[in-house]
Amino acid sequence: MATGQAAATATGAEREALDRAIALALRGPRTHNPQVGCVVLGADGTVLAEGHHRGAGTVHAEVDALSQLAPGAARGATAVVTLEPCDHVGRTGPCSEALIAAGVARVVYAVSDPGTASSGGAARLAAAGVDVVRSPDDRAEAVVADWCFAMRHGRPHVTVKWAQSLDGRAAAADGSSRWITGERARAHVHAQRAAHDAIAVGTGTVLADDPALTARTDDPSAPQPLPVVVGARDVPADARVRAHPRGLVQLEGAPDVVLAALWREHGVQTLYVEGGPTLASALLAAGLVDAIHCYVAPTLLGGGRTALGDLGIATIADRLLLDDVALEHLGDDLLLTATIRPAATAAKEG
Amino acid sequence: MATGQAAATATGAEREALDRAIALALRGPRTHNPQVGCVVLGADGTVLAEGHHRGAGTVHAEVDALSQLAPGAARGATAVVTLEPCDHVGRTGPCSEALIAAGVARVVYAVSDPGTASSGGAARLAAAGVDVVRSPDDRAEAVVADWCFAMRHGRPHVTVKWAQSLDGRAAAADGSSRWITGERARAHVHAQRAAHDAIAVGTGTVLADDPALTARTDDPSAPQPLPVVVGARDVPADARVRAHPRGLVQLEGAPDVVLAALWREHGVQTLYVEGGPTLASALLAAGLVDAIHCYVAPTLLGGGRTALGDLGIATIADRLLLDDVALEHLGDDLLLTATIRPAATAAKEG
Ligand SMILES: NC(=O)c1ccc[n+]([C@@H]2O[C@H](COP(=O)([O-])OP(=O)(O)OC[C@H]3O[C@@H](n4cnc5c(N)ncnc54)[C@H](OP(=O)(O)O)[C@@H]3O)[C@@H](O)[C@H]2O)c1
Ligand SMILES: NC(=O)c1ccc[n+]([C@@H]2O[C@H](COP(=O)([O-])OP(=O)(O)OC[C@H]3O[C@@H](n4cnc5c(N)ncnc54)[C@H](OP(=O)(O)O)[C@@H]3O)[C@@H](O)[C@H]2O)c1
Repeated sequence: MATGQAAATATGAEREALDRAIALALRGPRTHNPQVGCVVLGADGTVLAEGHHRGAGTVHAEVDALSQLAPGAARGATAVVTLEPCDHVGRTGPCSEALIAAGVARVVYAVSDPGTASSGGAARLAAAGVDVVRSPDDRAEAVVADWCFAMRHGRPHVTVKWAQSLDGRAAAADGSSRWITGERARAHVHAQRAAHDAIAVGTGTVLADDPALTARTDDPSAPQPLPVVVGARDVPADARVRAHPRGLVQLEGAPDVVLAALWREHGVQTLYVEGGPTLASALLAAGLVDAIHCYVAPTLLGGGRTALGDLGIATIADRLLLDDVALEHLGDDLLLTATIRPAATAAKEG
Repeated sequence: MATGQAAATATGAEREALDRAIALALRGPRTHNPQVGCVVLGADGTVLAEGHHRGAGTVHAEVDALSQLAPGAARGATAVVTLEPCDHVGRTGPCSEALIAAGVARVVYAVSDPGTASSGGAARLAAAGVDVVRSPDDRAEAVVADWCFAMRHGRPHVTVKWAQSLDGRAAAADGSSRWITGERARAHVHAQRAAHDAIAVGTGTVLADDPALTARTDDPSAPQPLPVVVGARDVPADARVRAHPRGLVQLEGAPDVVLAALWREHGVQTLYVEGGPTLASALLAAGLVDAIHCYVAPTLLGGGRTALGDLGIATIADRLLLDDVALEHLGDDLLLTATIRPAATAAKEG
């Protein structure tokens, strides 16, 4: 864009720069901090610098980009950022100030700060005379959606997965269950593992099944989820999960304590809980499950080995209601995915 | 059709007569005997007489039609029948003989006798010089499908229906379950009741829920299914099922004994079992269930009140496998229908 009256919406060059900033954002790690990308454009629309955030303790995307420019080179430039520039003094100083100090004339950002300690950057920039434009973008929202969720709730987004017969059993009377579901369902589970930051199982499942908790997908270079074992019992020295490339995390305590620690101490934004029945039921009973993935095998088993145990539901009015129910056929099996409707009253905490 | 060489397949006039015979067949009751219709055509293709079977102890369709003709009037005529004429001496004498004695020159039938004591009619007729043609017809097959099933198995075709939460529970901890499923699922159940010859529940359900066991459908003149209560305990004098227009049938004993009695003593070709968990599980464990209708409410309940109990399945290899799985959305609920794969080895009898 040539000099003159600043546009109130993003220009074509700025939308292109936003696409690039989104790609840059995704280079950063998924941890406590959001993935953010920034592109600095000259007055003629050429790219002056690019930056992204590399995780807690490193500079923010805007500062990363500005740091590549000679002093004064950003004067009159436009910064295109995936997330509203922060306004708090963290380990790195507020980005709003850095942009003002560099003489940036215009800031285009896609996602508003979700109301955290860092919010207010857009207002601060505007007050300093910077031309500030929000240019909403679904992909940019998606990049930070899980981080926003974890910031808001102080815990990861939790998906509980289990496999069952139609009548809700996880195994036959003698405990045998391999394979209750088929090959396509198992491949789907591996893809889900790869799509989450961490996988959790209880100690009961570790001791019974000795799972590796790796995501076995077509792409061997894909990042592996963090393996988490919940419970007080020792994980045997020769347990397969101990060989996991990310290193095992073991936690114990009430569900809310465990989840808060996963976010605070390990930066886990999304958690995939693979059971067993005790851990899954404890999380559901505590009202701390956001979504379920229920694989249903076309079979009836009967008997006492239910896939879910007690959920603390005394009467029918207290049942957990499922929303956004979707069905998928995976070979002979069904996958039912759903979200759990948050309790209207104060959340039950376990 | 004019006189001359007899056609080896049914003529247009005979196909039309078969349509009419199917309609006549459906006027008869569904009991121990098949529903059968017959149309007698003159050599010029005009309808000479119609008949249908009105249930055990009454004449068969062919004899019913012939009885409307003056002696000798059927000579050289064609009899079009939905089911192969019988060849046994029941309460009414074999139809094959009656047709031969009346001088019928040609017999067109749609469905072969399923190999019962009455079979062999077509061969007997052909041996007597009658021109016999089988003209297969899906609708005619459908009319006698349930009767054929019951003849072959010595019991009704059994569909077990239940409603459950996704995790396989029928009620919350305190027993409350109304309404686990919604309005559309309940309307669907009433249509299913109307589509079966009899509905069964255990005494436990009668005592807990006091069901009327009527089919409440849009058509008040539709036939009501026979209400059946299974179990030894008394049905209270004021139980709603006692006011059922068909009169209550109560049976006790092992599942195979109960089912055999329903066919032998009450001519029930299709049975719809509405629970509760004990009766449904006993039938499933005995290998005597042909199909299931599982209504799944989008909810989780946990706890001990499972919709199915013990099915006598010790190990995963013995699980009951579902075939022909079909899903239907009924409002917020799902209906999963399926058939149960017969055990490869000798059927488990309860
Ligand atoms: N159908 C499926 O999808 C599926 C999935 C996974 C496993 N399984 C099966 O489930 C069986 C294991 O069952 P499980 O229930 O023992 O497994 P689990 O849920 O993995 O482990 C239960 C253990 O988790 C610990 N724990 C952690 N947080 C807890 C809390 N808030 N409340 C209660 N306990 C908590 C306790 O151990 P500590 O005493 O150590 O604290 C508890 O004994 C195995 O047979 C496995 O094959 C089935
Ligand atoms: N979710 C659903 O779709 C659904 C459907 C129906 C009912 N229910 C609920 O189920 C509960 C009643 O449960 P329930 O299991 O007691 O009901 P049930 O199955 O209707 O009745 C059980 C009784 O049936 C008799 N029985 C007949 N044949 C039997 C056999 N082969 N083996 C064992 N018993 C046989 C026994 O009674 P005798 O001692 O009299 O011989 C037994 O106690 C109620 O709360 C009801 O609301 C739920």
